[in-house]
Amino acid sequence: MADIDQICAAAREAALALAPLPGEVRSAALEAAAGAIESEMAAILDANAKDVASGEKLVADGEMGEPLLKRLVLNEEKVREMARGVRAVAALPDPIGRASYAMMLDEGLRVRRVSCPLGVVAAIFESRPDALVQIASLCVKSGNAAILKGGREAVNSNRALAEILSRAFASVDGVPADAIQLVEAREEVTALLTRDDSIDMIIPRGSNEFVSHIKAHSRIPVLGHADGICHIYVDKSADRKMAVDLAVDSKTQYVAVCNAAETMLVHRDAAADFLPVAAAALRAKGVELRGCERTRKILADAAPATEEDWQTEYLDLILSVRVVDDLDEAIAHINHYGSRHTEAIVTSDEAAAQRFLDRVDAASVMWNASTRFADGYRFGLGAEVGIATDKIHARGPVGLEGLVIYKYQVEGQGHRVSEYDGADARPFLHRRLPLEDPPD
Amino acid sequence: MADIDQICAAAREAALALAPLPGEVRSAALEAAAGAIESEMAAILDANAKDVASGEKLVADGEMGEPLLKRLVLNEEKVREMARGVRAVAALPDPIGRASYAMMLDEGLRVRRVSCPLGVVAAIFESRPDALVQIASLCVKSGNAAILKGGREAVNSNRALAEILSRAFASVDGVPADAIQLVEAREEVTALLTRDDSIDMIIPRGSNEFVSHIKAHSRIPVLGHADGICHIYVDKSADRKMAVDLAVDSKTQYVAVCNAAETMLVHRDAAADFLPVAAAALRAKGVELRGCERTRKILADAAPATEEDWQTEYLDLILSVRVVDDLDEAIAHINHYGSRHTEAIVTSDEAAAQRFLDRVDAASVMWNASTRFADGYRFGLGAEVGIATDKIHARGPVGLEGLVIYKYQVEGQGHRVSEYDGADARPFLHRRLPLEDPPD
Repeated sequence: MADIDQICAAAREAALALAPLPGEVRSAALEAAAGAIESEMAAILDANAKDVASGEKLVADGEMGEPLLKRLVLNEEKVREMARGVRAVAALPDPIGRASYAMMLDEGLRVRRVSCPLGVVAAIFESRPDALVQIASLCVKSGNAAILKGGREAVNSNRALAEILSRAFASVDGVPADAIQLVEAREEVTALLTRDDSIDMIIPRGSNEFVSHIKAHSRIPVLGHADGICHIYVDKSADRKMAVDLAVDSKTQYVAVCNAAETMLVHRDAAADFLPVAAAALRAKGVELRGCERTRKILADAAPATEEDWQTEYLDLILSVRVVDDLDEAIAHINHYGSRHTEAIVTSDEAAAQRFLDRVDAASVMWNASTRFADGYRFGLGAEVGIATDKIHARGPVGLEGLVIYKYQVEGQGHRVSEYDGADARPFLHRRLPLEDPPD
Repeated sequence: MADIDQICAAAREAALALAPLPGEVRSAALEAAAGAIESEMAAILDANAKDVASGEKLVADGEMGEPLLKRLVLNEEKVREMARGVRAVAALPDPIGRASYAMMLDEGLRVRRVSCPLGVVAAIFESRPDALVQIASLCVKSGNAAILKGGREAVNSNRALAEILSRAFASVDGVPADAIQLVEAREEVTALLTRDDSIDMIIPRGSNEFVSHIKAHSRIPVLGHADGICHIYVDKSADRKMAVDLAVDSKTQYVAVCNAAETMLVHRDAAADFLPVAAAALRAKGVELRGCERTRKILADAAPATEEDWQTEYLDLILSVRVVDDLDEAIAHINHYGSRHTEAIVTSDEAAAQRFLDRVDAASVMWNASTRFADGYRFGLGAEVGIATDKIHARGPVGLEGLVIYKYQVEGQGHRVSEYDGADARPFLHRRLPLEDPPD
C-alpha cells in the first residue's frame, strides 16, 4: 500500500503549484500529454494487452462479464481518440480567473469574485482506461491536482497512462509531476476517504452501492450519483411515432447506464392507442414490460408492476409502465420516485412541456429528446468527470464548471471597517463594475 | 416536539410550489413581509420585551453574557431596519431562471443550463432575531422553502416574526404559508439532520463546536464555517501607518466574530520599526500579544506563542505575532494554519499583492483592507445567509448565489441518441447560443 500521507501532501503541494499557473501553461501541459499518448502508443497497447489477457481469463472463469472486457480493450484508433479528447479539453476556454461579480464598495475599495481551482480532487472510476485520461485532463485544465483510482481490471493500462501523462505534464515548465497520482489498492481508497484535510472533492463513478458507500463514509464533498431512475412521460398530445422512437432509444440504446429510462408514464388518453404499438417496438428489442393495473388492461400479457418496481434502477431490458391521469400526476410520480437524474416528456403541447421542464426536480429535463442525451460530451461540455444528482455545486453532466470554485479578492487603500460602523458611519457606494477589464 | 415528518413534507411541498413562481411574485411576497413587519411593530416589540426580560434574569444569574443580551434587544429603529433589509433583498435581481450555458447540439436540438432553487434549506442560527428575517427573505427570494431554528433566547421574537412573515408571504397569490416554518427544540434539529430525503442544504451559524457537530452528524450538504483563523500579513513595503490601522481594525473592531484577525505575520525587514508602534496601538485597545522568538526579541514583554496559538481562534483581545523571512513564508504559514476564511496583506508592492491574492487559499483575500470587510452586506450582496469556508458550491459571504443550483433543459424534435452513435454516427453541431433570448 502506498503511503497515503505522502500522496496527500504531494497532491496538496501540486495543487498550490498548479493554481497560479496561467491558462496557457495548463493547456500546454494537456497538449504535451496528447502528443505523448500518440508517441507512446506501443507502450499503451502493450500494457492494455496484459489487462485484456487477464480479463479474458476472468471471462472464461465467469468472473467478469463480456461487456466489461469489451470496454477494457484499446486499439490504435481508441488511443488516437484519447489524444483527440485531451486536445479538445485543452482547447476549451480557461475556467480559471473569470470574474462573476465585481463591485466598487467605496472610492478606492473594490471586490471581485474570481474563479479558482478546488484544489485536490480524488476520482475513483470504473474499468475504461479512457476515464483516467478524461478526468486527468479536466483536472489539470482547471488547475486541480488529481488522485486517481481506476478499476483493478485495467491496472496495467492505467499505470502506463498515468506515467505517460505525469511525465508529459512535468515536461512543461511549472507543472508538477504530482499533478496526477495513481493509487491502486482498495484500502488506499478507504484511507483517502478520511483525508478531508487534503482532499477537496471526491468523484466516485460506479455502482449504486459503491457510490452510496463513499457518501456514507466520507466527510469530503462527493460529486456523483447513486441511482439513475429516469422516466419518460408520454403526454396525451404526444406524436405517437416520436414517443415510440424515444421510448425505445431511452430504454434500449444502452441499457446498463444511468441515463437509460427505467419507467414509462403514459397519459390515460394516449394509453389505448400508444401502448400496444410501444409494447411491440420495445419487445422487439427484448424489453420485458411490467405494468400498473391500467396498463395491464391494455397490455394483458405485461407482468404486474409492484411498488418496488417504481423504485428500481433495472440497468437491464426491463421497463415499468404506469398510466397516469394527467401531466401533474406524472410530475408528482417523478418528483416522488425519480432520482433527480434525467427525465423526459414527449408532447406537442408547449405549455405542458414548459410545466414539465419547470416543475420536475431533476438535473436534466428533456422535451421530445431521449434521456440518453444527458452526457457531458453530447451537451457540448467537452468531456465529463461524471454526472451529479445532488443539488449543490454542479449538477447533471459535470465538466470543467464543476471543478472550480471562486474567491473574493478585495483591493483597498487602507480601508477600515470602523469607518463604516456606528453613529457617523460612512455609507457604502456599492456600484457595480464591469466583469472584464476592471479599472486599475 | 413538532412532527418533523410533517414539517419536512410541508417544506418539500412548499418548495415545489415556490420553484415555478415568477420572480415578481417572490418579490411581492417580500414586499408584503416588509409591510407586515412595519405594521406589526407593536406585536414584535412586545414579543421581544418578553425575551429581553428573560435575558436580563439570565444575565443577572450569570447564565448569559451582556453582549448576547445586547444583540437580542429590538427597538423601533431596528425593526424598521429589518423591513428595509427585506425590501433591499426584494429589489435584488432575480437569481432564478438565468441561463449560464446554451448550446445548439444539432438542428432542432438545444440545451440550456438554467438556474433554479435548491429546494429546502434548513437554517440554524444564533440569537439575533434579524437573522431569521434575513435568511427567510433570501430563501423566498430564491424560491427555496426554509426550516428555521433560532436561538432559545429569542424564542418569543422569532415566533412573532415567523408568524408575521408566514402570513404576509401567504397573502400573495401562489406563495405557500409553509414557505418558512419554525422549529424550536434542539431535538428537532437532531431529527432534521437525518432528513437528507427532504432537506437540500443546512446552514448552521454558531460556535465552532456546533458547526463541527452538524457537519459530523449529517449527510446533508452543509454551508458554513467552523473556524475563522484569519491573518494579516505586513509586507516589507507596507505603509507602516496603514499597517497599524489595519491591524487594529482587523483585530479589535469586533473581536467576537469569525472575520477578526487572530494572527499577524510581519516581514523581517519591517519588524523592527513596525512592531513597537503596532504593539502600542494594539495594547491601547487592550490586546494581549503572543509572539514567536523573533517577535519577542523586539517586543520583550510579549508572551511566547506556542504551536497551539497558530491554530487558535481566540475570538478575544489576543493576537499571535510571527516574524517571517518573506512573502512566501507568510503564504505558506497561512495555507498551513489558516481556516480558508479571510486573509489580508498590507503592501505597496503590487506584484507581492498579486502573488498573495493568487496563492493564498481562502474564501476572501484582502489587499490593503481590513479582514472585517468579509461580509455579505459590505460586499454588496444585499445580505448573507452565512459565510462558507468549504471549497464547493458557494464560498465566503453567501448571498442569493449560494441558494441556487441549475438544471439542464433540453428541447428536441424527437432526437434519439442511436442516430449519433456507431459507424454512421451523425456528428453534433455544438454551436454556442446567446445566453439571453434563445431562439424559439
